[in-house]
Amino acid sequence: MPLHDPAHAFVPYPDVPVPHASTGPLTGLCFGVKDLFDIAGYPTGGGNPIVLARSGIKTRTAPTVQRLLDAGARLVGKTVTDELAFSMTGHNVHFGAPLNGAAPERISGGSSSGSASAVSNGLCDFALGTDTGGSVRAPANHCGLYGLRPTHGRVSLQGALDLAPSLDTCGWFARDVQTFARVADVLLDADPAPLPAQVRLLKPIDVWALSAPAAVAALEPALRATEAVLGAAQPVQAQLDSFEAMYWAFRYVQGREAWMTDGPLLERYAPPLGAAVKQRLDWCKTVTDAQLVPATAFRARFRAHLGALLGRDGVLVMPTMHDIAPLRGDSEDAFEDYRNRSTESLCMAGLSGFPQLSMPLASRAGAPLGLSLLGPAGSDRSLIALAERIAATLPAPIYG
Amino acid sequence: MPLHDPAHAFVPYPDVPVPHASTGPLTGLCFGVKDLFDIAGYPTGGGNPIVLARSGIKTRTAPTVQRLLDAGARLVGKTVTDELAFSMTGHNVHFGAPLNGAAPERISGGSSSGSASAVSNGLCDFALGTDTGGSVRAPANHCGLYGLRPTHGRVSLQGALDLAPSLDTCGWFARDVQTFARVADVLLDADPAPLPAQVRLLKPIDVWALSAPAAVAALEPALRATEAVLGAAQPVQAQLDSFEAMYWAFRYVQGREAWMTDGPLLERYAPPLGAAVKQRLDWCKTVTDAQLVPATAFRARFRAHLGALLGRDGVLVMPTMHDIAPLRGDSEDAFEDYRNRSTESLCMAGLSGFPQLSMPLASRAGAPLGLSLLGPAGSDRSLIALAERIAATLPAPIYG
Repeated sequence: MPLHDPAHAFVPYPDVPVPHASTGPLTGLCFGVKDLFDIAGYPTGGGNPIVLARSGIKTRTAPTVQRLLDAGARLVGKTVTDELAFSMTGHNVHFGAPLNGAAPERISGGSSSGSASAVSNGLCDFALGTDTGGSVRAPANHCGLYGLRPTHGRVSLQGALDLAPSLDTCGWFARDVQTFARVADVLLDADPAPLPAQVRLLKPIDVWALSAPAAVAALEPALRATEAVLGAAQPVQAQLDSFEAMYWAFRYVQGREAWMTDGPLLERYAPPLGAAVKQRLDWCKTVTDAQLVPATAFRARFRAHLGALLGRDGVLVMPTMHDIAPLRGDSEDAFEDYRNRSTESLCMAGLSGFPQLSMPLASRAGAPLGLSLLGPAGSDRSLIALAERIAATLPAPIYG
Repeated sequence: MPLHDPAHAFVPYPDVPVPHASTGPLTGLCFGVKDLFDIAGYPTGGGNPIVLARSGIKTRTAPTVQRLLDAGARLVGKTVTDELAFSMTGHNVHFGAPLNGAAPERISGGSSSGSASAVSNGLCDFALGTDTGGSVRAPANHCGLYGLRPTHGRVSLQGALDLAPSLDTCGWFARDVQTFARVADVLLDADPAPLPAQVRLLKPIDVWALSAPAAVAALEPALRATEAVLGAAQPVQAQLDSFEAMYWAFRYVQGREAWMTDGPLLERYAPPLGAAVKQRLDWCKTVTDAQLVPATAFRARFRAHLGALLGRDGVLVMPTMHDIAPLRGDSEDAFEDYRNRSTESLCMAGLSGFPQLSMPLASRAGAPLGLSLLGPAGSDRSLIALAERIAATLPAPIYG
């Protein structure tokens, strides 16, 4: 961890040198890694003391981390994760609440809270996170960062702790799109489904309707800038049936898989958990096959629906979240409500497996707001290229 | 840790072989060690996730642990401690609440909760703990175990995390006095101030008056058995001024030292703490020199007073605690009240530095109660020898 960590973004492990290539495409950049990924010489804590105790010192480094080291990036440390990566508040009852560098009075979001905190506070240039239900996109929205949830399976999660494997993805954060793209050049090979030069910009009016009116108004200039670069957005309906149906399909799939992942730990060691995480995991245990089977079918239908809507050239432009980050002092009930509302829009990328990039192009009440591009499976680098074109037309990023 | 740990007594670190002598006075015995002591190959967690994260893997074993290994005892694992060793409830919000093997519906007591739990549940033969304000004696009382707070400084705490160094001691637990004495033979050299063959048994009527009437009644047979062996107890007054004055002297000294120990950690890393521990540490920060200086003077006077009372042959016989363990489900307020009441009698050994041995010789409402012998500085082994004589006149221990 860095000697100076006023944001409490890093887990204070003793420093163990982690070698990196002396030159490479990421030379000069330093990075943090969410404490779900194995790094040789360090434990992997997963945001829970019992997981940390059981970890021991890892002898292998996760391939995705190694790829960054081999590209010349320097590791600064491991960043705090929400407990078992199963929260969106950025408040870990065991390891603390990393500060949001763009809006310190507001939560950083989670579960990649420490990574977003480290980058937004300037403690490193970029940081790895994971996104199952929004754990990169939410902190990116809240902390004024670029953040990608890649196409499911595209960036390796080998050597990282699972939450819900069919939904888990490995993403990253940066303050500016140039740095973000440099990392993409290392972590992503050529897009298997690149977008054409001329994309069809689609505005899912039902997703926009989920947002607070003040947030919609605040995003308007960024939307106009995006349209100026990519062409006028056509209104579409993104949801299948209802957001409520999507929400429940997501939650049942995530819940069953989270219980399969963490149930054995919980049943054997009975580790104390933060109250909200415990409540959710207790709920996960109750998910029945009668809930899961239709959810899985729904998921397949939704993926087909969204795939058909996007085709090979369609890009959704939409708010990353329904609003800015909640205040740090809000109640657990308020956070649970926030999480449930957030899941309605965030679950689209999870259910479909399609990539979503959040761009820090707006703010309201002094806090950042992200505008998202969501494209077809395998269009990740194309989305980042679009973001570079959009950013080029705008003043310097608001934060960073 | 043992493969089977239904009591959640052990921190589930990965097993690392810790060599022990093949033969010695403790051959055939296995033991647990409170997770404050360094053991090569393991981290030292201190009951707090940030302490655990910062620990790294230790390369040296604390001399007291090594002494046990060199005597042929086999290490089973590291036991859960209350957070920063600064609680008496045996409930660690990060690592759990080890079960009381003698009264599972009641707390194990702390801070050596895991050690008392492991022994009382039969998961090992003896276990090391520490006692600053009662952290061996309270769990011994609650879990039906022999437990010694040795003369201050007599058993090395090198390589162990501090709480309040002028009060910290290293003690241990066993289910029967024979095992207890075997460990004493290894950890304690010959008594520097052995008790004579005929001791003066003293009954501090003011300490007995602190106990619940039902507890006094339950302890009566054990007191009579002790008198039968050692002679009739003479009534004395043990307190100096008042128990309230002793309580505050103890708390100010402990508070200042605890803040000197843990303040730098708290101020730099802001680790989340259990609510009660946090409240106490916040209070510790407020202890002023105007409170500490008279407390230190009082402590010296009390030590002289108790030393004069005991002389070279005096032994106090008294309840270890005012009552049996509280129920696990009691409120934090109830626990705080319990802790404050407990401190009144437990602080005598702390303020004086004199040894106190708790013997599991009584019970009420199905839960254990300990009777204590408190002797002059340096009489530790003599106290254990008295306990062996008393136990020889009684049926097998109630628990274990």
